[in-house]
Amino acid sequence: MNEQGTSRMEAFSDGIFAIAATLLILEVGVHSVSGDRLDHELWHIWPSYLAFVTSFVVIGIIWINHHHTCSLIGRVDRTFLFINNILLLTIAFLPFPTKLVAEYLQKNGERPAALLYSGTLVVMAALHQVWWRYARNGRRLIADGVPDSELRAVDRAYAPGVFMYAAVFAVAFFNPLASVALTLAIAAFYVPSAALFAEKT
Amino acid sequence: MNEQGTSRMEAFSDGIFAIAATLLILEVGVHSVSGDRLDHELWHIWPSYLAFVTSFVVIGIIWINHHHTCSLIGRVDRTFLFINNILLLTIAFLPFPTKLVAEYLQKNGERPAALLYSGTLVVMAALHQVWWRYARNGRRLIADGVPDSELRAVDRAYAPGVFMYAAVFAVAFFNPLASVALTLAIAAFYVPSAALFAEKT
Amino acid sequence: MNEQGTSRMEAFSDGIFAIAATLLILEVGVHSVSGDRLDHELWHIWPSYLAFVTSFVVIGIIWINHHHTCSLIGRVDRTFLFINNILLLTIAFLPFPTKLVAEYLQKNGERPAALLYSGTLVVMAALHQVWWRYARNGRRLIADGVPDSELRAVDRAYAPGVFMYAAVFAVAFFNPLASVALTLAIAAFYVPSAALFAEKT
Amino acid sequence: MNEQGTSRMEAFSDGIFAIAATLLILEVGVHSVSGDRLDHELWHIWPSYLAFVTSFVVIGIIWINHHHTCSLIGRVDRTFLFINNILLLTIAFLPFPTKLVAEYLQKNGERPAALLYSGTLVVMAALHQVWWRYARNGRRLIADGVPDSELRAVDRAYAPGVFMYAAVFAVAFFNPLASVALTLAIAAFYVPSAALFAEKT
Repeated sequence: MNEQGTSRMEAFSDGIFAIAATLLILEVGVHSVSGDRLDHELWHIWPSYLAFVTSFVVIGIIWINHHHTCSLIGRVDRTFLFINNILLLTIAFLPFPTKLVAEYLQKNGERPAALLYSGTLVVMAALHQVWWRYARNGRRLIADGVPDSELRAVDRAYAPGVFMYAAVFAVAFFNPLASVALTLAIAAFYVPSAALFAEKT
Repeated sequence: MNEQGTSRMEAFSDGIFAIAATLLILEVGVHSVSGDRLDHELWHIWPSYLAFVTSFVVIGIIWINHHHTCSLIGRVDRTFLFINNILLLTIAFLPFPTKLVAEYLQKNGERPAALLYSGTLVVMAALHQVWWRYARNGRRLIADGVPDSELRAVDRAYAPGVFMYAAVFAVAFFNPLASVALTLAIAAFYVPSAALFAEKT
Repeated sequence: MNEQGTSRMEAFSDGIFAIAATLLILEVGVHSVSGDRLDHELWHIWPSYLAFVTSFVVIGIIWINHHHTCSLIGRVDRTFLFINNILLLTIAFLPFPTKLVAEYLQKNGERPAALLYSGTLVVMAALHQVWWRYARNGRRLIADGVPDSELRAVDRAYAPGVFMYAAVFAVAFFNPLASVALTLAIAAFYVPSAALFAEKT
Repeated sequence: MNEQGTSRMEAFSDGIFAIAATLLILEVGVHSVSGDRLDHELWHIWPSYLAFVTSFVVIGIIWINHHHTCSLIGRVDRTFLFINNILLLTIAFLPFPTKLVAEYLQKNGERPAALLYSGTLVVMAALHQVWWRYARNGRRLIADGVPDSELRAVDRAYAPGVFMYAAVFAVAFFNPLASVALTLAIAAFYVPSAALFAEKT
């Protein structure tokens, strides 16, 4: 080594993304085991559904971005693999704050739960920037033949991430539920933005 | 980007399918920890086995269909990846209603459990249709050289999905056990149907 | 479709094998949470370690066999994918009897636990035979250019599986601990046998 | 068979690495369910974060090394697959001592927890040596065209592993917290060392 194709890094990353997304469901559960009130309980745990859907969609979006960016990267080095692992660490951590949001939203304790959740997303977005900057600066790891316009399109797509999640973090101080709903809305927003940046390319 | 081969989408999807199917076993457990009655208890929890087998076979069948359909698709775009992620979300959700069926079947609460289970399958089948329609309409993402007859074969194979699961949902109102058994029977039915559509191709 | 390469079936299967093997550790745990006796407790739960190691090695061996056999198979059809899914179902089921063995070995209830464990292995070995026979008979799915001697080597390697596990099942009636130890010994035995059949090829 | 490319072994190994790393988060949890003190509790469980981060980074580093070494290996045989499975067994076991460290660090029982944790790492490093030695001796499984200088670089990189973890094990007798912190520091140390050995190659 020290430079190789991205295929095995992608396989390992896909594994972490897929497992973290699927483990989320283990945290969804009903507390009352009395069958008589199960139908009521299944409505009552809507914060669990919201937390599950939000985290799943967020992980899916990050995966799409990771996936797209990797297609521009032609080689990896050990430092990049290390940064990638730290980024994956935040993905793998996400089920824990998700569980807290599922459990505490609309109850005492919802504020620290929502702060840890959005704080994790801020760190994740920042690490995604570092990850991209390391590969992109001076075209360190960029594949030959990728036009600069494509790199700038990724720059534009990644630029707002940290700021958006920092705003969500601020909202979580005042209104935990709104901060989670906003997180879901941001993930949904990435689809039109994707159409946008495809046009500009 | 915006158009690429399907290989990494398939890797991510395979991961979700495989993990969701394997996590199902975590929900199977015995409540009585007294060893004296373990043999009795292992027969007593047959609804857990039924729920495990049904969900595993259902996920396996959807995986086979997803797998086959991907072989006809030559490229992906971000919207398709997004639809694929929402479809995967319902797959990843399935262990939760499976756990409920395992726990409540033949007890109070079996009706809401079976309704959530079959309702999830209705949504999943509908999303699978949307997923296929997006790729197929105007051959948007279909690989060159795939004959129209193959697309029509997939149309025929997917067409009954939503209706069958809607029927299962209706049955769940009156007889939760029958609705789960019917789900398993439908999954088994897909093998002869597969032979059928292979002939017509 | 109806015939394709084996690569995506292998990816899905690898996923199930890897996840089932790794989930086993979730069942290992200490009951006493008092830290004073943790060192004692960590020795005391040796049946958990035995069950974990045995199931992990068994899954690893089946994976090696599956892996080798797939290299002889040139195409798949839907029936083969379905048989493969049922085989994977037994792999995915294995963490449940493993948990029972871990919990009940050397206690009341060890007999039904060991019987379910070895019974699962009997079914798994039988399905592996069906899986291989379906692909091999009349060289239905065998890749061109694979010599018959290689197929016979696999026949020889798979032939004793069902009988050995049936013997383990019989032993479990009289001595549950011996049956688990025997399972581990059989998995270890497959390495010399592998050397053997490589010679004959 | 008996010699094949490494791709499917890598896929299976990647699966185990990725799942073991991601399962670690399931062991992180809060005990007090009273929402009033959730913010306090989230700080209080810092040993869980330390254990999670340490094990995740350790698994990530081993994965990077495994990944790099596989790129030098041109074929596998069954014995090598078996050694690889035993190595993976120790990776898959790691979530258990990680959970113990998370639960008992800074409490009664922290010593046996830290000893099992570092002891597992000693065994893992020793097996990694055996794994590499088996492939490397007489260039048994090394791909053609790999220069001897690359093999010696791996020798140098792997050589200190067992000794470092043995030192950590010794530290765990006297200061469990220091032993875990040292483990994390060792994992971080591998990045500069990587730069070093890239230069020498």
